[in-house]
Amino acid sequence: MDQSVIDNQKLMDTHLHHPEEHLKSSDVLRDIVIGMSDGLTVPFALAAGLSGAVGPDGTHIIVIAGIAEICAGSIAMGLGGYLAGKTEQDHYETELKREFYEVDHLRHKEIEETKEFFSNIGLSEDLQDKATDEIAKDKKQWVDFMMKYELGLDKPDPKRATKSALNIGISYIVGGLIPLSPYFFVSHPVDGLKISVLVTLLCLFIFGWFKSRITGVNVWGGAFRVTLIGAAAAAAAFGVAKLFES
Amino acid sequence: MDQSVIDNQKLMDTHLHHPEEHLKSSDVLRDIVIGMSDGLTVPFALAAGLSGAVGPDGTHIIVIAGIAEICAGSIAMGLGGYLAGKTEQDHYETELKREFYEVDHLRHKEIEETKEFFSNIGLSEDLQDKATDEIAKDKKQWVDFMMKYELGLDKPDPKRATKSALNIGISYIVGGLIPLSPYFFVSHPVDGLKISVLVTLLCLFIFGWFKSRITGVNVWGGAFRVTLIGAAAAAAAFGVAKLFES
Repeated sequence: MDQSVIDNQKLMDTHLHHPEEHLKSSDVLRDIVIGMSDGLTVPFALAAGLSGAVGPDGTHIIVIAGIAEICAGSIAMGLGGYLAGKTEQDHYETELKREFYEVDHLRHKEIEETKEFFSNIGLSEDLQDKATDEIAKDKKQWVDFMMKYELGLDKPDPKRATKSALNIGISYIVGGLIPLSPYFFVSHPVDGLKISVLVTLLCLFIFGWFKSRITGVNVWGGAFRVTLIGAAAAAAAFGVAKLFES
Repeated sequence: MDQSVIDNQKLMDTHLHHPEEHLKSSDVLRDIVIGMSDGLTVPFALAAGLSGAVGPDGTHIIVIAGIAEICAGSIAMGLGGYLAGKTEQDHYETELKREFYEVDHLRHKEIEETKEFFSNIGLSEDLQDKATDEIAKDKKQWVDFMMKYELGLDKPDPKRATKSALNIGISYIVGGLIPLSPYFFVSHPVDGLKISVLVTLLCLFIFGWFKSRITGVNVWGGAFRVTLIGAAAAAAAFGVAKLFES
């Protein structure tokens, strides 16, 4: 799923006309999409796989396995996201210090790198020099420029890591409880499976529709694709678990 | 885990001195990190959770649940990554067409946006105009510039989606089989749990060490953090499964 985040991030950043204004709501949406995407899919497939393999009185096992999975998955994603956020921040601070150091002590190297940027985007030798001179006048502005366009680093929001971890973790739990909940109320696993498949595929479709709207791709195609991943994961888990049952 | 990808991507991009040359190996490494990170953690925690809840003859259930989870997780991550890659590509093509259209039909708007970019990085009114004139001379170069710096979009490699899906999926499977394999060879779940904890925490530590090296953060701290996430997920899954057992 990780791949999709990069894309979502990019898509969202570019689709909102004023990324600064909408930053907060889009970050939250992105977190929800990340958490719910896996939360709806993996516990769904795990429960489906088990329901074909545990025998008629195994509903309780499915519930326990599902709960354990939701617990493990939400912590892995949430805490993982938190630590990644912290790492990103450490990395930003380290690079920022290094840039300030280089601007002071390796000025000619930084000048060259700045010229190289302007050369890469297609400016003439003459303008490369002039633009570099102007940017290098203000040290803070110069470092900001290097951070953003040489290193491709945006200043991370210090509170982001914690919030993001919570949003992703909670979304995973909410998403995971949807496919699992039918098994709470039935005695035979296969009954649970039938309701779970119906409810979850419907939810995946709705979720896929909204996710596609947010990321600006065709909504029906997107809804279909998200549903398909869930169905494929569940079918494969069911088949493989059946194989190992005997 | 998704958050960590964005960060890894950024970190790798900035840490390799020649991103163009190293692109392929770093993409593969990134995929392996993504897949193995979740693969080592979630099946480990699920198996740990179940081993406290299934009773002395439940080893077989743990194996089936673990296999179903690895199956579900690898498909969700792999196929999810594939479709996300396709979406990214569609999005890039759409935006590329739009930029070419705008350069032809809304030239004054594009000129303004280009000037705005140069104004934002701190160039004077005079240089903003000159630089914009030079960039706008070559239509392809101008569109490339807008795609990269106005929209923040890099041209996606068309074969990337498929390769990435396979790399991530396989890494998840390899990672997931490590914590699960002890349960293949023991009869009592708790014996499996003990070996699984030892083997997996060791692997998480080694994996965390390499991951930190690649992303350029403190290796021992990074190794410790990755191990901690795995241990926390397993402990929580164990505790919660115990609660639901009774």
